[in-house]
Amino acid sequence: METKEALSLINSSVRGLSPYHLVREDCEIKLNQNENPCDWPSSIKQQAAQFCLERPWNRYPNFIPESLKSDIARYIGVDPQSVIVGNGSNEMLLVLLLAFAAKAKNIIICSPTFTVYKLLCEGMGSRTVNVSLTDDLEYDVDAIKAAVTAHPGSILIICSPNNPVGNTISEDDFKSIMNVHTGVCILDQAYAEFGGFDGVALLPRYPNLIITRTFSKAMAAAGLRLGYMAGGSEMIAEINKIKLPYNINFFTEYTASLILNNTEWLKSSVNAMIEERDSLYKFLSELPFTNVYKSAANFILVRSANKKELFEHLQQCGILVRDVSSYHLLEGCLRISVGTAQENVKLRGSMQKFFN
Amino acid sequence: METKEALSLINSSVRGLSPYHLVREDCEIKLNQNENPCDWPSSIKQQAAQFCLERPWNRYPNFIPESLKSDIARYIGVDPQSVIVGNGSNEMLLVLLLAFAAKAKNIIICSPTFTVYKLLCEGMGSRTVNVSLTDDLEYDVDAIKAAVTAHPGSILIICSPNNPVGNTISEDDFKSIMNVHTGVCILDQAYAEFGGFDGVALLPRYPNLIITRTFSKAMAAAGLRLGYMAGGSEMIAEINKIKLPYNINFFTEYTASLILNNTEWLKSSVNAMIEERDSLYKFLSELPFTNVYKSAANFILVRSANKKELFEHLQQCGILVRDVSSYHLLEGCLRISVGTAQENVKLRGSMQKFFN
Repeated sequence: METKEALSLINSSVRGLSPYHLVREDCEIKLNQNENPCDWPSSIKQQAAQFCLERPWNRYPNFIPESLKSDIARYIGVDPQSVIVGNGSNEMLLVLLLAFAAKAKNIIICSPTFTVYKLLCEGMGSRTVNVSLTDDLEYDVDAIKAAVTAHPGSILIICSPNNPVGNTISEDDFKSIMNVHTGVCILDQAYAEFGGFDGVALLPRYPNLIITRTFSKAMAAAGLRLGYMAGGSEMIAEINKIKLPYNINFFTEYTASLILNNTEWLKSSVNAMIEERDSLYKFLSELPFTNVYKSAANFILVRSANKKELFEHLQQCGILVRDVSSYHLLEGCLRISVGTAQENVKLRGSMQKFFN
Repeated sequence: METKEALSLINSSVRGLSPYHLVREDCEIKLNQNENPCDWPSSIKQQAAQFCLERPWNRYPNFIPESLKSDIARYIGVDPQSVIVGNGSNEMLLVLLLAFAAKAKNIIICSPTFTVYKLLCEGMGSRTVNVSLTDDLEYDVDAIKAAVTAHPGSILIICSPNNPVGNTISEDDFKSIMNVHTGVCILDQAYAEFGGFDGVALLPRYPNLIITRTFSKAMAAAGLRLGYMAGGSEMIAEINKIKLPYNINFFTEYTASLILNNTEWLKSSVNAMIEERDSLYKFLSELPFTNVYKSAANFILVRSANKKELFEHLQQCGILVRDVSSYHLLEGCLRISVGTAQENVKLRGSMQKFFN
């Protein structure tokens, strides 16, 4: 067989994808991935290092990470049977599509939003229905209701707070959608710790609701690659059948529990980020941007007629932000993660220099 | 919506699955998961512990784990563009099904073999074609050729050495199948370090061949959950589009490279396991089993009319083996992993006690 013939064996939905790609750029100040800018205290890290010495590497992890599931369940206020853990909320999204996509003829995605939704749905050959945000980059609740009504039994994906915009859906608006939606809803709350309503409280009311969360943002553990989902326990038991066994390694399992048992540091760190975000928003609003969008997450979206020049200027100042200008509705937009107080001082200085 | 209605939204292929399950049993001697019975030396583990202290947890891993891919590529003798890494070879299998299953109408599985193949294929709604091993539990090469001819463009999954039997396919037989196969072939070589031919050498000849391997067996790192695949670089580039971004955490990335740069310990450990396996085979062959199967892996399959009693006797002696008697063709069979020399002495003693 020739290579060309072998390549033709690949699903056309996969061949049609553009590779998801992020060029690694080394920069002094990294404001491009919405990470918590602070690392865990070394007293915590030492416990994980000690575990890594003691725990036999040659043995499989637990078949079910019971203790981690209990810790997550306690943290968000559900029972352990309502939780599945995986490698980032990405894996949780994939598992959910494997569980629901064949039966749901359509997947409704509100854009602009996190690009991995569309990438995975298209790669798996699912039909996506796009509901645009409003011109103000808010969720268009009427349009979402119209879409779920036009496509009964579809999968609805909502990201709130929404990456890369920072907008949220209100609890009342969300409920009004769920009251007419006849399919499953995946509510991605990767940024829930920074603002917006807590979807977990709605789980008992909506058995067709699944929430995904992550350790990569507020939890200051992007390096771990841990995400989880929560839903009704019967639903979770069925979804769990299509999750790969042994998907979490021993280091992640131990370290994530360690984190959840040391939430004091986390709380103060998240509070500091929220304060920084609000003062950064005030500062950016006074600069001559076309738009600065209110954000309930740990980043701020700005729109500028001089996007390219600003991006390059910041880079020259050692600051890396995310160019999201190729997204639907986001022409001229940059997404700026909230750094430490010190990093934000530098960011302000560089911004002022650019606009003066 | 009622819970019952929500559950009906799940794909019937997933609802129809029995959950993959492994009851955790605590035993002094663990011979049930084909792990390398030896842990890495503490000098190696200390380097990983040190890295875990120094590396910021709050930052994402590299978008592409270039250095790990290079180390794996060097280890198996391909170029880095021919490698994808993931969470166990399980994730690699899932990615391959996502890449090929829609276009391939059928998936050919030779049974008995590793159960996750069937679980995933059925869960994803793919049609599986079963080709039984011969009564001697060898690959039925003519039957496999007949199946790939009857189902052009299908996905063929071959495990060699084959879990839980230990049989292999010979290089000549494998080539004779590949010469008539018009679809993709996934050759799972999780146990390649213990015996059988090296499929990697055939990659240049068969662009429709993909090899999967793991760090969970010979590499003594089941706790890490690392697997990888190798194939032609153009094929790998396409498959990579449907792999989730950031699927490997910083600890796994670092530790796997550490292991690959310390292969001396590994070689002597694997050689010791091969010696133990061969002497254990000789010992078991002289006991009144119905069958003891020759194995090219780090486990031995035995068949006994008193399977249940033997399993319980071993458990009472503190030895846990794997009951695989519910598998196709494996009535009365137990799979015994090769432990350390010391563990095998205990195993022999317990076996002798049982049969006397």
